[in-house]
Amino acid sequence: MRLESSAIAPRRPTIALAMGDPAGISPELAARLLCLDEIRAAANIVVFGDRRILDEGATIAGLVLDIDIVAPGETFDASARPVLIDLGNLSPSAVTRGEATPAGGAFALDNFRRALTMAKTGDADAVCFTPFNKKAMRYGYAGYDDEIRFICDVIDFHGHAREFNVLGSVWNARVTSHIPLSEVAAAITSEGILAEMALTDRCLRDAGVINPRIAVAALNPHAGDGGNFGREEIDIIAPAVEAGKARGFNAFGPFPADTVYGRALRGDFDAVLTMYHDQGQIAMKLVGFDRGVTLMGGLPFPVCTPAHGTAYDIAGQGIANIGATREAILLAARMASRNKAAAAK
Amino acid sequence: MRLESSAIAPRRPTIALAMGDPAGISPELAARLLCLDEIRAAANIVVFGDRRILDEGATIAGLVLDIDIVAPGETFDASARPVLIDLGNLSPSAVTRGEATPAGGAFALDNFRRALTMAKTGDADAVCFTPFNKKAMRYGYAGYDDEIRFICDVIDFHGHAREFNVLGSVWNARVTSHIPLSEVAAAITSEGILAEMALTDRCLRDAGVINPRIAVAALNPHAGDGGNFGREEIDIIAPAVEAGKARGFNAFGPFPADTVYGRALRGDFDAVLTMYHDQGQIAMKLVGFDRGVTLMGGLPFPVCTPAHGTAYDIAGQGIANIGATREAILLAARMASRNKAAAAK
Repeated sequence: MRLESSAIAPRRPTIALAMGDPAGISPELAARLLCLDEIRAAANIVVFGDRRILDEGATIAGLVLDIDIVAPGETFDASARPVLIDLGNLSPSAVTRGEATPAGGAFALDNFRRALTMAKTGDADAVCFTPFNKKAMRYGYAGYDDEIRFICDVIDFHGHAREFNVLGSVWNARVTSHIPLSEVAAAITSEGILAEMALTDRCLRDAGVINPRIAVAALNPHAGDGGNFGREEIDIIAPAVEAGKARGFNAFGPFPADTVYGRALRGDFDAVLTMYHDQGQIAMKLVGFDRGVTLMGGLPFPVCTPAHGTAYDIAGQGIANIGATREAILLAARMASRNKAAAAK
Repeated sequence: MRLESSAIAPRRPTIALAMGDPAGISPELAARLLCLDEIRAAANIVVFGDRRILDEGATIAGLVLDIDIVAPGETFDASARPVLIDLGNLSPSAVTRGEATPAGGAFALDNFRRALTMAKTGDADAVCFTPFNKKAMRYGYAGYDDEIRFICDVIDFHGHAREFNVLGSVWNARVTSHIPLSEVAAAITSEGILAEMALTDRCLRDAGVINPRIAVAALNPHAGDGGNFGREEIDIIAPAVEAGKARGFNAFGPFPADTVYGRALRGDFDAVLTMYHDQGQIAMKLVGFDRGVTLMGGLPFPVCTPAHGTAYDIAGQGIANIGATREAILLAARMASRNKAAAAK
């Protein structure tokens, strides 16, 4: 992976950070994050949440917060230190640690909506959030399947957006996602592969990767073994790779799914474009769940979060690893800086 | 994994070792293996191949072989030191390193057939082989897809045999294997899962694992998410797990495929029963390709080989890692010892 210099950023981006599920490790992660010099240097952080919940997170993490706290609608300046917009939207007494509740879901949804709206109106350049609990989210938003759908609803976006998993220098993209395995093969088209390839290329470039190398995974075992175990590689995937090359993408493959991640992790590729959900998730989760970042790409602004969940089992112990959350903010800041630079040209 | 004591073995098992493809690392692996004290102590080794090819392997490995060499049909005793049955079936001048040829395939097929026949007649307790090249094998045996089919043909076996991947203490089994992904969902049945579960349980017990814990993988992303992304978990896989428990298997699941390997590798399970080829292969190859062993289980005797291939790219350099081949022999010896012990009762 070759990264462009970040010297082109005109000024620090502003990131709207939504506090996630209050019953897990989200409060302590948010508090810990706000105390990292690296994060404070990379972006102006505006947090949406409740002061009392954030204070509890700081207590758990054993930290004293150096932030400004303002009421909703109040003017503020986040360039000197992070700002919490105290929505007063959840009392700690309503939180049972390790339990998904309607109150917790409503809190996270409220924070997320406001962070997204701030970015939509142009007052923030990116959105991040600490882990949500899907069950809690569903109490307040029926059919909350994934973040993409919710975001598109809130910001009224109708373009092509997708979830990427980023682990170190390797990105994972996918042509199909939350559908039954029985429907995967029929859902694989050259057009679909090309669309994801284009989005992957664009997002990697947005993140500063020069001429991103995209490996396309096969669908069948042994990449179909020359047609013996399926013909999608011959009829659909290889033609899509060729079409992608013709459009100027640095695309390779199709490669057998059981070796392509090894190659990417050794540095051969910047991204793996998989055909279905578990193809990439098995590899990504095995290699380094804790360090991974989930990026919602293709939106008008980047939205990033750690790939791990709410970790109810270790909430409140002060042992949550900040690594993935830190990486999520840094990726969002890098992408937002470049978007600002491009817009300023 | 709890292993039974090996003290029950009545005497050392005899392993028939077929030399594999001569153009790759097989010759040096065979030579290296025969020099390992641990291997010589674990089994009586009878090698099928050509003295000249094995000598070349020893030269590459920088070793002097301490073995007996006999002609086919000659009597021998492999209890003191390994024996090579010199078939005189390939001249080194016919081998081009790194190239799959009909001569190389014929050599490997000949060795493999004789090793299998020796085990079938009861003169060997297990069969091992150094890596084959499928393309070369196909020159001499049209439609050579995998070892199982060839073995069943040679020994005229019509029972249920399957390939297992063994990596350290984790076994990988699968319900479907070399079929197109589009056909996987339709091929998953409760009966099929139960049959593989029974075979997995039996092979693990044969290898000395006490009360093997078998994790069953889900088919769909997030294990179907309660039916949102497919119903096979609810309709087929969970009932099969319950039926397996009722039959006395130590079965668990279904678990999401993208986290079950992490749990198995942490020691929660002895085996993962996957629904399709890449589900397990992605994980196994990512974690430790070089150390893995492939076991053909369910046959009248164990057949083991390293999971890696012929490594044409490093053949002849003397740098091939013996690890997986060593593990293959040790697993075969362990299983053969137990089979002998059971037969002696």
